[in-house]
Amino acid sequence: MHPLRVVRGSPSWPPELDEIEAAPPELWLRGRTALLARAPRIAIVGTRAPTPYGEAQARRFAQALASAGVPIVSGLARGIDQAAHAGALDCGGATLAVLACGVDRPWPAGELTDRVAREGLVLSEFPPGVAPRRHHFPLRNRLISGLARGVVVIEAAYASGSLITARWAADQGRTVWALPGRVDHPMARGCHRLLREGASLIEEPAEILAELGLASECALGSAATDRSRAGAPANALARDLLTALRGETLGADELAERLGRDTGEVLTALVGLELEGAVVRGPGGLYRLA
Amino acid sequence: MHPLRVVRGSPSWPPELDEIEAAPPELWLRGRTALLARAPRIAIVGTRAPTPYGEAQARRFAQALASAGVPIVSGLARGIDQAAHAGALDCGGATLAVLACGVDRPWPAGELTDRVAREGLVLSEFPPGVAPRRHHFPLRNRLISGLARGVVVIEAAYASGSLITARWAADQGRTVWALPGRVDHPMARGCHRLLREGASLIEEPAEILAELGLASECALGSAATDRSRAGAPANALARDLLTALRGETLGADELAERLGRDTGEVLTALVGLELEGAVVRGPGGLYRLA
Repeated sequence: MHPLRVVRGSPSWPPELDEIEAAPPELWLRGRTALLARAPRIAIVGTRAPTPYGEAQARRFAQALASAGVPIVSGLARGIDQAAHAGALDCGGATLAVLACGVDRPWPAGELTDRVAREGLVLSEFPPGVAPRRHHFPLRNRLISGLARGVVVIEAAYASGSLITARWAADQGRTVWALPGRVDHPMARGCHRLLREGASLIEEPAEILAELGLASECALGSAATDRSRAGAPANALARDLLTALRGETLGADELAERLGRDTGEVLTALVGLELEGAVVRGPGGLYRLA
Repeated sequence: MHPLRVVRGSPSWPPELDEIEAAPPELWLRGRTALLARAPRIAIVGTRAPTPYGEAQARRFAQALASAGVPIVSGLARGIDQAAHAGALDCGGATLAVLACGVDRPWPAGELTDRVAREGLVLSEFPPGVAPRRHHFPLRNRLISGLARGVVVIEAAYASGSLITARWAADQGRTVWALPGRVDHPMARGCHRLLREGASLIEEPAEILAELGLASECALGSAATDRSRAGAPANALARDLLTALRGETLGADELAERLGRDTGEVLTALVGLELEGAVVRGPGGLYRLA
């Protein structure tokens, strides 16, 4: 099968790449070329040396997003990238691999690479015959982020290729999500660095689907369940406080007096309600309904 | 041994408590009362049902901080609190336990409690004889945060007492540090919630010591090592770029032309230098030295 060439400005050119700096003039495709028209896409990237946790999370995020119809973009590298591609394909979803070499000689070669070229789409800005060169990889990364609405970094070393992809993503106005991990594993350092630098903390693929408008709030999984559970006032005092605060802004002392309760009890209940997002504590320790 | 009473305004009253809202009028002490004068202190709190990871981290943070002379404040609860107290005492450091009952009847009772009352300091705003009541605990938490320069939350459920302590800390202008963890463990949810809400991500106790002015940059451990390693330009092109950017603001194309290099190579090197913090990418894709 001959690689297909798509030039900038043609109808099948992905419009997302017109938004990015240093967009390539052409793309070479191999596989299900119609996949190039499906958007929004999400990129999932990370280290070549993941922990079992990282690999499982890459697969989980890819499956959940691909099952909801979101194509997964990655770079075919061992570890996180391959787990993401495989996760998408295993649930019958779509996946795109962006290469740092010609699509006729995908690197790394292997069973999964062949499968992506058959069931998904392999693409490159480098013409057929071009070998993967070291400086191609960071450059290739700008297309991984450029084709996506956002990039999920699963696990990454402190200074690594995944962070370059994240940097491209931020420059391109894409969302950067970083998955937290244990502080005693070096492959969490890159994600934690991104979180310190302003990336969005991600725990559940449903959060991404919600941001893409593809899932309702009620599908947000355990985090949302916790939230709604926390939203119900636990006891009579909490309910009395919410009633007393209707249209009013009051301090703990005054609330305690009105309700004939101990200030300590009232303060405690107020902090609980604040934690649940039901009341807001303003300047001077005055509380109001949220 | 009779509990010692300290009243607000007396010379031994901890001045940190004058800064907080709803400060108690008195404190009851049992143990090494001189410890009350030692500041700054750091609070370490968390769930009663930690993972082995959380328990090990609580101990690690307590040991590192206490070894550097920083007293550790916590609440004597099973799990993270007890690991923090034990960690501090095991390395000969200082620890303070704030109770939700009278200091003559510490709760929970046990060997560690006795040890803290002997080698550390147990204190409470509740007079001797007072039983621990449910609404005392969140109230007690405001003293844990109030006595500390900052609070480290190690592991916590999504809505839990540790998050109440963190909320008090934020209200009191204390730093809230949250330790990240695996997204597939419920006890990481509280810390991740805090990180989403603006808490500082913490990986190493040395970061806290640096913020307290107690450690030099070079003691910052592995994260800092990674950083300084990343700071050395990896190759000749990177060095040429840094030279070319002295006093100039240039785009990748112009830099490539000046250096007689491929734009792809130059862009790649620039992204690498940006990641290392050596150059800054401004509007219009123009680069300058950081």
